[in-house]
Amino acid sequence: MVTPDPAASIADLGEFGLIDRIAAIVGATAPGDDVLVGPGDDAAVLRVRKGHVVVSTDVMVEGRHFRRDWAEAADIGHRAAAQNLSDINAMGGRAQWLTVGLAAPADLPAQWALDFTRGFAEECAGVGAGLVGGDVSRADQVVVSVTVIGACSVSPVLRSGASAGDVVALHGRQGWAAGGLAVLGRGFRSPRVLVEAYRRPEPPYAAGPVAAEAGATSMIDISDGLLAEAGHLATASGVAIDVETSCFEIPEPLVAVGQALGADPLQFVLGGGDDHALLATFPSGSPLPDGWQRIGTVHATSADEGAPRVTVDGASYDGPTGWSHF
Amino acid sequence: MVTPDPAASIADLGEFGLIDRIAAIVGATAPGDDVLVGPGDDAAVLRVRKGHVVVSTDVMVEGRHFRRDWAEAADIGHRAAAQNLSDINAMGGRAQWLTVGLAAPADLPAQWALDFTRGFAEECAGVGAGLVGGDVSRADQVVVSVTVIGACSVSPVLRSGASAGDVVALHGRQGWAAGGLAVLGRGFRSPRVLVEAYRRPEPPYAAGPVAAEAGATSMIDISDGLLAEAGHLATASGVAIDVETSCFEIPEPLVAVGQALGADPLQFVLGGGDDHALLATFPSGSPLPDGWQRIGTVHATSADEGAPRVTVDGASYDGPTGWSHF
Repeated sequence: MVTPDPAASIADLGEFGLIDRIAAIVGATAPGDDVLVGPGDDAAVLRVRKGHVVVSTDVMVEGRHFRRDWAEAADIGHRAAAQNLSDINAMGGRAQWLTVGLAAPADLPAQWALDFTRGFAEECAGVGAGLVGGDVSRADQVVVSVTVIGACSVSPVLRSGASAGDVVALHGRQGWAAGGLAVLGRGFRSPRVLVEAYRRPEPPYAAGPVAAEAGATSMIDISDGLLAEAGHLATASGVAIDVETSCFEIPEPLVAVGQALGADPLQFVLGGGDDHALLATFPSGSPLPDGWQRIGTVHATSADEGAPRVTVDGASYDGPTGWSHF
Repeated sequence: MVTPDPAASIADLGEFGLIDRIAAIVGATAPGDDVLVGPGDDAAVLRVRKGHVVVSTDVMVEGRHFRRDWAEAADIGHRAAAQNLSDINAMGGRAQWLTVGLAAPADLPAQWALDFTRGFAEECAGVGAGLVGGDVSRADQVVVSVTVIGACSVSPVLRSGASAGDVVALHGRQGWAAGGLAVLGRGFRSPRVLVEAYRRPEPPYAAGPVAAEAGATSMIDISDGLLAEAGHLATASGVAIDVETSCFEIPEPLVAVGQALGADPLQFVLGGGDDHALLATFPSGSPLPDGWQRIGTVHATSADEGAPRVTVDGASYDGPTGWSHF
């Protein structure tokens, strides 16, 4: 592979020049005997060992999900991969293969596309997954659509299995990325630990399969906000969820950012997304697996049809609960 | 499902309103016992019966791959599905499941998104495949990224298996969509048969698996142009391909359009894409399966390194050979 001129655009490389260079990056990191044919044919050919596969697709749009001036291309690649790998984690599965559809302006620096790919492939390799295919096209802005395929060794954990009495539990950092995003939005670059949490989330990849084996009754990853995701679990399961704020210890960097920005740091925890922590429910009385922290309780839905699905300390919550894509 | 106000935009429906309506359309058409969990969870859950799966991703961008004023939303949905289903056909496989990443402006009419989905799901249902997941996001223009997963009952047919002496053969209409596109580009709406071929291609879905069973040595679908795709086969296989124009009978509508536009109709056949015909190579002397037409021969590569990989009637071709995405 020839390193492109640092000033080359993706149009300078051309479609197939770009694909060749992406494939070279992928070939250097893609693991495994189960990829019989990787990028370069009409389709990748994969050996499936398990009877059930799980598949998920996520779209990221420049200016909406990421900004090129707020993070390096490699970070954005890590984040795009993490967001998708996390969906398989939230089923209790292990991610195996990914494809990427990349639409981008012709003047996008080729180096950006390659650094993005390198970060993406590194994040995947960290969990033993590989990039096996994709497509590129010209568009007015950068749009990245990722599909991930994984396998579950036990039954996948759906959103719909929670029942009254279950314990609501959290695994992983929550609110850190939202704190980092708030800082970046004000033009700051610190606290660095929060900015890094936004740029390169660290989803608890091992926790999903462990939770599935431990009998989690429902599970979701927190992409859009803790309360918003709790709402998805509650709706899918036909239950109500109460989140207890006394269970949270607000991390020191969020306290500091809250003071600096005049915001309640609890809002980052309750409304923030992008950390890809896991939210799950477990049967009452069964011990939580390592690293899971109880944060609330599942209740039967109220007879009052207007009652909220998700409450905070037993009451309606009127702060921001998450992110809307339109 | 409530039918949206005809004037509603996707922003009016909101992310989850839009997803609910898309899921309702998908639920009405998705076939099969093998979809254990469809849209609505973190990932779809699929039962895999075969040991090998094939997966492919394609990106379509408004203004580049389609125009909303040149085709109905349902047609564009059919075409987006066809383009992807065809990639599995070109491996000799049968498509089973698809996901769609849709990025679109907030003011996109909701009806457009739903009609697109309906056309997409209909095309999939026609081959027994189903839409099992996806994502939506706001963007400046419509970008559709489709991933398709399929299975092969015999070994997948790659691009790399052609060898000298093989017969080059074609299955399906070729050049019709390019003729339709040329007509639309001039502001005309007829010949209708060509415009329809562009709007709603009819890939020969059954032909791929049959060719695989008949021992095709290499195969590709013609998305970007016959000569361009022949070039991909030649490069991947390390061979040269000669296409013989005497093998083609130019269809009457293409002759008519060539006369009207002052173009050589052979250019539509040799350079046109979008019909998703299949191009394959078969061992010399073995009978071609039904519907396949011999159009050329595989040769050893010339000792002259500058020699073209693909020739037409033994000579270099200096007309347009296909479509570049940048």
